[in-house]
Amino acid sequence: MEFTSEQRLDDDVVEREFTLGEIPGTLWMPGSASAAVPLVLMAHNNGLPKNEPRLVARARHTAARGYAVASIDAAGCGSRPRSAADDQARADLRKAMQAGEPVDEIFESFIGPLVDKAVPDWRTALDALLALPEIDGPVGYSGWTAVGIHLAVTEPRIAAAGFFAGGYVPLAQREEARQLTIPLLFLLQWDDQGNPRQRALDLFDAFGSKEKTLHANVGGHTGTPWFELEDGGRFYDRHLK
Amino acid sequence: MEFTSEQRLDDDVVEREFTLGEIPGTLWMPGSASAAVPLVLMAHNNGLPKNEPRLVARARHTAARGYAVASIDAAGCGSRPRSAADDQARADLRKAMQAGEPVDEIFESFIGPLVDKAVPDWRTALDALLALPEIDGPVGYSGWTAVGIHLAVTEPRIAAAGFFAGGYVPLAQREEARQLTIPLLFLLQWDDQGNPRQRALDLFDAFGSKEKTLHANVGGHTGTPWFELEDGGRFYDRHLK
Repeated sequence: MEFTSEQRLDDDVVEREFTLGEIPGTLWMPGSASAAVPLVLMAHNNGLPKNEPRLVARARHTAARGYAVASIDAAGCGSRPRSAADDQARADLRKAMQAGEPVDEIFESFIGPLVDKAVPDWRTALDALLALPEIDGPVGYSGWTAVGIHLAVTEPRIAAAGFFAGGYVPLAQREEARQLTIPLLFLLQWDDQGNPRQRALDLFDAFGSKEKTLHANVGGHTGTPWFELEDGGRFYDRHLK
Repeated sequence: MEFTSEQRLDDDVVEREFTLGEIPGTLWMPGSASAAVPLVLMAHNNGLPKNEPRLVARARHTAARGYAVASIDAAGCGSRPRSAADDQARADLRKAMQAGEPVDEIFESFIGPLVDKAVPDWRTALDALLALPEIDGPVGYSGWTAVGIHLAVTEPRIAAAGFFAGGYVPLAQREEARQLTIPLLFLLQWDDQGNPRQRALDLFDAFGSKEKTLHANVGGHTGTPWFELEDGGRFYDRHLK
């Protein structure tokens, strides 16, 4: 793991870029931590870049609360090389969604394999991050529902997870959902046109966890109210601190 | 409004019993308030008594947070006189619910009129409470969904409301729900056998408010996790302070 840059931001969060073999990552840490802090892995739905402003804002807020927060561009995601076929599939998916056409087949054939490729990179990052002296378990997860389900089912170090959206999730992860046992916070935008509400509710229902909480708010995909960031922080505080 | 008793509790909350004509009430105040505090009206679903321990715990927690909290036994509720017909309807309703039989008809004929009778008493209490120098607006509402809907639609002084359950709500209030415009926090137990989940979700969907948040947790009617009390408190803090 090689750190390639470091800057202290105006919220006293220290943001460091790193590379781990082919994996580029960012680590946000509270600037004033005197002891090792718990870790939250933060992934953007469907492989959006780790430097996307909404993810960065969530990461900085969570770091300022006393967490190490890490995001990577996993294989096939963000800045990582993509095949022409991937680009085509992404374009087809967007087009079908905008036209209100069925997207399940494209979604399954494209996002399913993307999840399978991404999770090993997240596990590699987890190993390297937990080896840092300034980070100590337990580990939380935040964001991309499908990757989080697969990671949490296969990785016992994940102690609590916050998922967002979840209307479209590959079949494999919808089936894995029943095996989940960790505490969950499932965040849903009630009028998210790209995430069918009933499917998201069905997924919430399917999770095996005894402690699972659904938060739903009015509005579209990007309209999550700011207080959900605070609520998410308190969820991690309950389970990781 | 006549105060009949006062005691300081071990959480430094001052609990005072009062009567207002035929209406018995309880007022919980933060013991250390130096200025007038906002008011939360707290009503138990379907007319359960104001001294029921779960309501008292919620009231004390909310008062300790810096609110005046008031509950009354409205007409037909709690300790107030009930007709033999009311007692029979209550018994029929319980029996039908336990047997898993349809309850809509009994519910409508019994709870519908109870809501209509209860709301004027809540408004009478609101007038008297706001006349106290230690209480100042804005006013929040917490609890019984049907009374809260009717009160909030007809009473502009209610600025924010937290509702619980809401699977069974009289038709009149399901229709009024669309007229609601104040911020709402709608709390649902996912496995509440006495509150059909889909109906509660439909009611959440129907509320006209632009700011409405659904919180759902695993478990039955009385299994709401303690952190929802904190979340409710923060909801009132955002809108009443």
